[in-house]
Amino acid sequence: MKIAIDAMGGDDAPEVVVRGVIDYFKEQRFRSLLKIILVGKEKVIRKELRKSAFDPKGMIDIVDAREEISMREHFLSYWRRREQTSIKKGLDLVKKGVAQAMISAGNTGAVMAISKNVLGNLKRIERPALALMLPTPKGHSLMLDAGANVDSKPKNLVQFALMGKVFLENVYGIEDPRIALMSIGEEEVKGNELTKKTFNMLKSLNINFIGNMEGSDVYSGDADLIVTDGFTGNVALKVSEGVVETMQSMLKKEMGNNLLSKAGFFLLKSSIKRVRKKMDYAEYGGALLLGINGLVIVGHGKSNAKAIKNAIYMGKKFIAENVLDKITEEAEKVQSVLKEYKYV
Amino acid sequence: MKIAIDAMGGDDAPEVVVRGVIDYFKEQRFRSLLKIILVGKEKVIRKELRKSAFDPKGMIDIVDAREEISMREHFLSYWRRREQTSIKKGLDLVKKGVAQAMISAGNTGAVMAISKNVLGNLKRIERPALALMLPTPKGHSLMLDAGANVDSKPKNLVQFALMGKVFLENVYGIEDPRIALMSIGEEEVKGNELTKKTFNMLKSLNINFIGNMEGSDVYSGDADLIVTDGFTGNVALKVSEGVVETMQSMLKKEMGNNLLSKAGFFLLKSSIKRVRKKMDYAEYGGALLLGINGLVIVGHGKSNAKAIKNAIYMGKKFIAENVLDKITEEAEKVQSVLKEYKYV
Repeated sequence: MKIAIDAMGGDDAPEVVVRGVIDYFKEQRFRSLLKIILVGKEKVIRKELRKSAFDPKGMIDIVDAREEISMREHFLSYWRRREQTSIKKGLDLVKKGVAQAMISAGNTGAVMAISKNVLGNLKRIERPALALMLPTPKGHSLMLDAGANVDSKPKNLVQFALMGKVFLENVYGIEDPRIALMSIGEEEVKGNELTKKTFNMLKSLNINFIGNMEGSDVYSGDADLIVTDGFTGNVALKVSEGVVETMQSMLKKEMGNNLLSKAGFFLLKSSIKRVRKKMDYAEYGGALLLGINGLVIVGHGKSNAKAIKNAIYMGKKFIAENVLDKITEEAEKVQSVLKEYKYV
Repeated sequence: MKIAIDAMGGDDAPEVVVRGVIDYFKEQRFRSLLKIILVGKEKVIRKELRKSAFDPKGMIDIVDAREEISMREHFLSYWRRREQTSIKKGLDLVKKGVAQAMISAGNTGAVMAISKNVLGNLKRIERPALALMLPTPKGHSLMLDAGANVDSKPKNLVQFALMGKVFLENVYGIEDPRIALMSIGEEEVKGNELTKKTFNMLKSLNINFIGNMEGSDVYSGDADLIVTDGFTGNVALKVSEGVVETMQSMLKKEMGNNLLSKAGFFLLKSSIKRVRKKMDYAEYGGALLLGINGLVIVGHGKSNAKAIKNAIYMGKKFIAENVLDKITEEAEKVQSVLKEYKYV
């Protein structure tokens, strides 16, 4: 079993990527069945590997890639030199069957575009989408699309709903998952053109559609799957991050040098830490590019070593459970459902 | 000076509305120059008023309104009986010049639609929008549109930007406010069709346009004005609420019966309280329907008495500072700017 990892992807690459890989191997009590292929500038990767005293002998391969795509680079600026990039070379390994999954915390748009180009979409899936597990007090909710597409049509959102259902049923064993549509009011009539049309389509399908969900309930755990377009999904996720950070920095400022407050913070620390851990994206590794003909996991640009390590566990689980085969098999049914309802 | 208040609007109306009004008068050390007209079912309002020992003699008038519009009611279901509703009767008072502003924490869609119908838009403004002050560690940022419109065109967003600029300059004395466009990446090329077109238009205007802003920076205070369509704005606001609530309930759960954690929470309480106060919408009263030919303040559906009280202070400030005249005067310029750039 092999996973290719984009060593150059992410704000703190390659350092945290290599450290995440090392941390993964450190945790293995027995010889790992999984090998990692680090893709990127070989010299730089070797330098990072030497920083660690721990040597996972023979478990890490390196594939050299001359180019990298920066986090904020646009399609047009990287497309001509994509052949030599770490993202392209990593995906090539999946295409050739050398690796069974690819992980990148790099430029999401680039990973998405090159994945489509190298691996193609699953048969009959028009648009892949980012499937991200969100933490809730009751467990998790899957958000789809978390930011792969910017302008979606109702039929795309319906495909997301059906792909997400298949994913949750087959990978997480959730029977007949509760599917909600993100909107600005619970009632059917609330929303924009996109959500209102999508609502009608979802309502007519033989799925457990529980209706619209407002932004305030995204973290309630009341739905197993939250369907939204990638623009709205991305804004929702990033606002969540921003609120938590703002509240923390305001709390620190308020505490100032007040000793009692500081003592209070100290005593409360372990509880706060556990909550933050539950809410921390790093615990979840990354998001799956659902709808691509291959396992591609996209990490947060701010991924730390722990996020990379957890993305490896995620990839391992997906490979071991034949996620791709299961989804591929079901994806064709998605299209026949849509055809049956004349939604394509 | 008189403000009309929809006594029936909000999840906890009329109780909290009446209490908010009473609280306002309690705080006046001298005889208030402001009278309040409570609009709604007279019997119910009188009953609520009798609950309080405090009697603001002669300062509260009541205008009877037989009907009310529930929070989740749709346009079609209330439109035929709108004439007798508290929202319509309150807005009529503004139209007739009896009151100089109207406050409602009721059904936002209804307040918006009936305001357009009764008061009309400001000359040359196509779509009014909800202007909401968001708390940031550095002060405030105005979000526009916070949820009045669902599907907006680029030219609408440009109008929001210009209206917001006028509002911040004239009401808050912010010179040449920094204007940002909410999107999913900082670069010009990031976003959906709507934001990309809007970006180009904003860029060409003679305003302090600082570019795209991601969801994570909404509470950073780096912009004075955040322009967005009402759907995205509403999702962003509600997600913010949801995250804070979820973190709080998770923290409580984590603390459980651990005495040390509880002691910590106790010591930290005053700091947490101050932060929550800063982040609390109730502190800000409500959002102004910018672009309507009259002062209409929309409160959060969950408004408590404090939010109502603060909305009264907000209305008082807007009346005292001739906000409507100032905006009306400038609004015509908005259109000539748009014409000059051929954006209308």
